[in-house]
Amino acid sequence: MYRDHNNSELNLSFITKKVTLSGWVQKIRDKGFIIWVDLRDRYGITQLVFDSERTSSALIEQARELGREFVIQVEGEVLERESKNENMSTGDIEVLVEKLTVLNSSETPPFTIEDKTDGGEDLRMKYRYLDIRRNPVKNKLIFRSKVSMAVRNYLSQQDFVEVETPYLIKSTPEGARDFVVPSRMNAGEFYALPQSPQTFKQLLMVGGLDKYFQIVKCFRDEDLRADRQPEFTQIDCEMTFVEQEDILNTFEGLTKHLLKEINGVDVQDFPRMTYDEAMKTYGNDKPDIRFGMKFGELNDVAQHKDFKVFNEAELVVGIAIPGGASYSRKEIDKLIDWVKRPQVGAKGMVYVKFNADGSLKSSVDKFYDETDLKAWAEQTQAQPGDLICVLSGEATATRAQLSALRMEMGNRLGLRKPDEFAPLWVIDFPLLEWDEDTQRYHAMHHPFTSPKVGQIPLLATDPGAVKANAYDLVLNGNEIGGGSIRIHDQKTQAMMFDYLGFTKEEAEAQFGFLMKAFTYGAPPHGGIAFGLDRLVAILGGQESIRDFIAFPKNNSGRDIMIDAPAPIDEEQLKELDLKLRS
Amino acid sequence: MYRDHNNSELNLSFITKKVTLSGWVQKIRDKGFIIWVDLRDRYGITQLVFDSERTSSALIEQARELGREFVIQVEGEVLERESKNENMSTGDIEVLVEKLTVLNSSETPPFTIEDKTDGGEDLRMKYRYLDIRRNPVKNKLIFRSKVSMAVRNYLSQQDFVEVETPYLIKSTPEGARDFVVPSRMNAGEFYALPQSPQTFKQLLMVGGLDKYFQIVKCFRDEDLRADRQPEFTQIDCEMTFVEQEDILNTFEGLTKHLLKEINGVDVQDFPRMTYDEAMKTYGNDKPDIRFGMKFGELNDVAQHKDFKVFNEAELVVGIAIPGGASYSRKEIDKLIDWVKRPQVGAKGMVYVKFNADGSLKSSVDKFYDETDLKAWAEQTQAQPGDLICVLSGEATATRAQLSALRMEMGNRLGLRKPDEFAPLWVIDFPLLEWDEDTQRYHAMHHPFTSPKVGQIPLLATDPGAVKANAYDLVLNGNEIGGGSIRIHDQKTQAMMFDYLGFTKEEAEAQFGFLMKAFTYGAPPHGGIAFGLDRLVAILGGQESIRDFIAFPKNNSGRDIMIDAPAPIDEEQLKELDLKLRS
Repeated sequence: MYRDHNNSELNLSFITKKVTLSGWVQKIRDKGFIIWVDLRDRYGITQLVFDSERTSSALIEQARELGREFVIQVEGEVLERESKNENMSTGDIEVLVEKLTVLNSSETPPFTIEDKTDGGEDLRMKYRYLDIRRNPVKNKLIFRSKVSMAVRNYLSQQDFVEVETPYLIKSTPEGARDFVVPSRMNAGEFYALPQSPQTFKQLLMVGGLDKYFQIVKCFRDEDLRADRQPEFTQIDCEMTFVEQEDILNTFEGLTKHLLKEINGVDVQDFPRMTYDEAMKTYGNDKPDIRFGMKFGELNDVAQHKDFKVFNEAELVVGIAIPGGASYSRKEIDKLIDWVKRPQVGAKGMVYVKFNADGSLKSSVDKFYDETDLKAWAEQTQAQPGDLICVLSGEATATRAQLSALRMEMGNRLGLRKPDEFAPLWVIDFPLLEWDEDTQRYHAMHHPFTSPKVGQIPLLATDPGAVKANAYDLVLNGNEIGGGSIRIHDQKTQAMMFDYLGFTKEEAEAQFGFLMKAFTYGAPPHGGIAFGLDRLVAILGGQESIRDFIAFPKNNSGRDIMIDAPAPIDEEQLKELDLKLRS
Repeated sequence: MYRDHNNSELNLSFITKKVTLSGWVQKIRDKGFIIWVDLRDRYGITQLVFDSERTSSALIEQARELGREFVIQVEGEVLERESKNENMSTGDIEVLVEKLTVLNSSETPPFTIEDKTDGGEDLRMKYRYLDIRRNPVKNKLIFRSKVSMAVRNYLSQQDFVEVETPYLIKSTPEGARDFVVPSRMNAGEFYALPQSPQTFKQLLMVGGLDKYFQIVKCFRDEDLRADRQPEFTQIDCEMTFVEQEDILNTFEGLTKHLLKEINGVDVQDFPRMTYDEAMKTYGNDKPDIRFGMKFGELNDVAQHKDFKVFNEAELVVGIAIPGGASYSRKEIDKLIDWVKRPQVGAKGMVYVKFNADGSLKSSVDKFYDETDLKAWAEQTQAQPGDLICVLSGEATATRAQLSALRMEMGNRLGLRKPDEFAPLWVIDFPLLEWDEDTQRYHAMHHPFTSPKVGQIPLLATDPGAVKANAYDLVLNGNEIGGGSIRIHDQKTQAMMFDYLGFTKEEAEAQFGFLMKAFTYGAPPHGGIAFGLDRLVAILGGQESIRDFIAFPKNNSGRDIMIDAPAPIDEEQLKELDLKLRS
């Protein structure tokens, strides 16, 4: 038996007890006549003591040979400490070591195993097993496990059945790129790894399972943007005999439960906002509503003068930055440079200082008088002391630019508090979105999303205006979940595929099984999927998902710890009936 | 809202209430003046009634147009039934329909959606979504979900952290064949899908997570035997600072919990048997100990006469089949044919009838007298009325043959009761096993298993005799879990790789990250993995795993419902830098 207690358990009630502990050497303080060793495990730290009055000199010598991250086992007696440490659960005691066994030695770690480490990102990833010993990473993994369990317990109590759907499925050219898996037993053929269990969960509803969930890995072979992983985890859910309202209520319940159980936070019923309203008010379909700076559209009050830039713009729109009137000319110039960066892409920025004394001063005083600027202040809900920032141009692009500025200012002004939670349903998403590359409409959500009742005829006349029974759950400016009510009759589904540019043959080859299933009594159904990596990060008060994943991949999709991907044997390729082109 | 109750909820307390129900038409009985419809959902069946006295003729006409598996919604009043059905939760009531909406029609299903169906295996797999509507399949999936939740809850309560390990890892030629995934971003390189998260869970232990578990899909590209799936699910576990005893206790606890929670069965502490003893007593490392028929070795009492077959055999061994003395000559001949089938492979079988009157009659009376046969009866613990079956030959093969006969007779005699549970730890597995093909020793468990303390020197002299700290959990003749204490120091691991025929370069290329990790304070650790598919099947009283998997693949690794694997576009292949050979 390696231990009878872990390193967070001992306290004054154990005084004089003999104990056996195991763990890692976190720290050694050698004062000559006395040596303290901090012994660490997952649960905490216990202070060990070797002292020349009570410890044999042989044992003291042994202790002197210890190094950081050595794995040791000790037997000893629990003593009350002279100087207690209230910040740790074992801070009242120490263990006077009577026997020391080195279970394994350690080379000097490539970075310090402390809460704040000197290890850079690459080094931490290469030695991820050492990084995981650090509290910040370890705690995030334990936190993730807790969130997963809370999700499972809640949904199970609501009669959801967790069903495992297959990982080796069929590739479909629709949507993002699939990872494929060559089949040896079926030469020349490939499986694909699922981008989501979408069709399988729909088939489970056709199969009458009624309420399904699964916490499941999904795969997308995309060029990785920062903080995207080729494999990611979804909480995937589907329900039968439901309307949108049923789904929103069920998963609002889940989210409230998580906020309460994990964060101890009670939240009110989630506000709802249409997609159109979100775009108009925040320039963004996943607005962070923890703070204001709502968009004020200025076309009516800014296109009546001789300022050509505004007059020619599809949209003139501004936000009021709280307290921004005090920014220096230099600070404002920097802000203008910021919105003109290629990542944001604005051509320029007009600003109005709404001074504390009520006076208004703008960068376009040549064109607009105080009455005009007052009207702008009203539209942007500016208060004295604010800085009104105005962008203009093509509507969609301008909204995106101003949204970027709004989020940036939210961050800079500390308005995006990690311990404040502002969930929001965004509903009534468009069914389709125009794709410039292919010059046709694509399904905004996926081809199984049902249009709103009665809107199918609009597909012929104004496809972009058709709204879907689709919804996103937004938390603190991040989409944490999204879903829709699905099409459940074969005719509408076939029409949809036709509309999205599938030939009959393609639709049949790729989704024939689903359309066939729809002819055998498919019930109305719908669902939602949450991005678990993101959800866990946000509940944990972070925006980066990487440390909530035990072994993440880097931006080239590599695991630098195990060095994967890697070449495989020619023999393996042959068995798969494959060869490399280059 | 599609329903306010499900189809198992309504009872006498709802009489006169107005309800809304949805579901599938299970059955229609049209008596002319009255029509009954059984409405089904996941939860149960509710009887609907349309009757000419109380229902409008238009509604009756509508009901007449319903067909099996139509999806309908009804509104109506709950009435007490005249003839009650005590076998169903809703058997006291029926719903007089006032409004009927057809939500979806259905073509005639290709097989009947009943507990006993007329659908063959292939048809059921092709239309798996219809098969899942049947209680036997649906209930197995719900059962699986319950088992998974019970596992998770138990392990979480024991402080295990569920950690998701990556699916896109590195291929290693050791062990079974990997499924590989070509990387587009790293042309010419491949990921592999994990055969198990073995190295990752060990790294989590090096990382100090202390107790890990995961319910996780694993992948093996093997030629499929019956009831094997290319993707399968493991309950994967690992613990730190443990000896074999700690692991056995922990997972005996889990298994007892499952038997109690899922099956309502209390079991005693699990017996333990060494591998050698299991092979000797049952000819099998996963013996079904629900029944006897233990092996009796007969070399000492059968090799002293002139019977050459026995005298030349390495092993003469028999079992006593209860009640077998009454078998006719024809029945016994059939049994002999059975052991001579190529799947079993015995050359012949000697038998002894131990008659009810105590007399003994054998097929080798020419060579052996009653005293000899008495001794055989003693060795095989035969009782009057039994049939002693004796096989002989090379020891390992003969044991396997007799084990096959024993299991067959256990089945025929109804001794393998599905509701009886006999768990057993088999311990002290050999570290290595001889592989005839490659003419060298392979790791019996995997190369990370630690030899028993002090047995390393034996590797040089008698490798086959080295025992490992490896153990299997056997339930009713099936291995449901297996694991080992791992090597945790770099030197032993390097020696092990060397011993298994890895060059230094190969070991470094494939497992360098693990051996590196071992130099930074790797703690003693060990673990176990359960096959969830098998475990669930056995807890469910079945031996076939297929119906406990929502969408299984067939023996060629195909999903015949979605028709996968399938060819992919030339374009996709090009992006992956691949081409087909043939």
